[in-house]
Amino acid sequence: MAEVVHMIDSEVFLAFSTYATIVILKMMLMSLMTSYLRLTKQVFSNLEDTAMAIAEDKKKLVRTDPDVERVRRCHLNDLESIVPFVVIGLLYALTGPVLSTALLHFRVFVVSRFIHTVAYIMALPQPTRGVAFGVGLLTTLSMAYRVLTTALFL
Amino acid sequence: MAEVVHMIDSEVFLAFSTYATIVILKMMLMSLMTSYLRLTKQVFSNLEDTAMAIAEDKKKLVRTDPDVERVRRCHLNDLESIVPFVVIGLLYALTGPVLSTALLHFRVFVVSRFIHTVAYIMALPQPTRGVAFGVGLLTTLSMAYRVLTTALFL
Amino acid sequence: MAEVVHMIDSEVFLAFSTYATIVILKMMLMSLMTSYLRLTKQVFSNLEDTAMAIAEDKKKLVRTDPDVERVRRCHLNDLESIVPFVVIGLLYALTGPVLSTALLHFRVFVVSRFIHTVAYIMALPQPTRGVAFGVGLLTTLSMAYRVLTTALFL
Repeated sequence: MAEVVHMIDSEVFLAFSTYATIVILKMMLMSLMTSYLRLTKQVFSNLEDTAMAIAEDKKKLVRTDPDVERVRRCHLNDLESIVPFVVIGLLYALTGPVLSTALLHFRVFVVSRFIHTVAYIMALPQPTRGVAFGVGLLTTLSMAYRVLTTALFL
Repeated sequence: MAEVVHMIDSEVFLAFSTYATIVILKMMLMSLMTSYLRLTKQVFSNLEDTAMAIAEDKKKLVRTDPDVERVRRCHLNDLESIVPFVVIGLLYALTGPVLSTALLHFRVFVVSRFIHTVAYIMALPQPTRGVAFGVGLLTTLSMAYRVLTTALFL
Repeated sequence: MAEVVHMIDSEVFLAFSTYATIVILKMMLMSLMTSYLRLTKQVFSNLEDTAMAIAEDKKKLVRTDPDVERVRRCHLNDLESIVPFVVIGLLYALTGPVLSTALLHFRVFVVSRFIHTVAYIMALPQPTRGVAFGVGLLTTLSMAYRVLTTALFL
């Protein structure tokens, strides 16, 4: 991290910005997917959300649904995986890695999360989702290793 | 992002720091609200948490409660919305936007999340909460658009 | 934040990078612990995950388990606590605090979260976990106070 000030203006930082934004947008898509499913399937978690629904007993619409729960699990897994990527990826970008190595990390992570999402939503046979999750995890661990070996200050 | 190094010292970055801190503090308040409700309503998720409670059968205190679950859903929605705002907002602040435009984004987002929280906790009639959520989402998308059009590096 | 550009290259920023990475790695460990428990205890949340399991009725393996739920609650509490620390800690590091004060904040927070995790997973008697959670919260609040008093721009 000797020349971090110059690094923040570098292509590595631009690449981080791009990939972090893309994968965060993908995560935000899960919110929209949940809303869409709740409205089309009439599955709500709050009584006040049923106001515009057409049903005899609106209380019955406050319920859970396997498809909605699946999207929510996928969303939570995104939070648990993408937050570490964004934090460690930012610090990693500031350590001044070689551009091609950095791009490899960012691209592999982002692709792995898109595969993870498709595998989760479509319930693809395992180990598709498991491998996608593991690859994303290893990518983040690899960046964490560089951060700790470059910038360790305890 | 041509002059990002100067940008980090700018009023836009100070504004981002201020609003990000405020909205994160609001999110942390949900933890305290959950703890408060658990203690006052004697609703726990772990048996060891019931040690200081006065009850014949302490196992019965390990249960769920509609009010606690409502606060927890609000908290989770915060995580799902505020994490994208913080990440994309930081990158957006580094693209050197006009101060007034940046302030507009930060203020609209933070106000929308306060409205969202009040609407959720008080179970206000829809579409109050839905609109607040949507406005926050659109604000973040608008900043993401600027990041990707200013700093795209794939 | 007058000389933030120089600050980003400082020992405070290196210290933040180190402690943020360590506490994020600890959080990622919860994902692995969940996966490990799901596989060894044969407790799954998706039918497709049971493909390699040996069971007459695989649908019965889609269930919840107290130990898995405990790890998941600990993981979610990590997200709710560590995300604020990382965001506010980064902004705090950029305000140019005294190194010893900054190190105190980072070390207390990270140690408090390790204690919180051990207390949660081993179900240690309260108020161990509660105090650990509270100490981490206060550390983050203390950093937020400095950010708002140093860099306020509304």
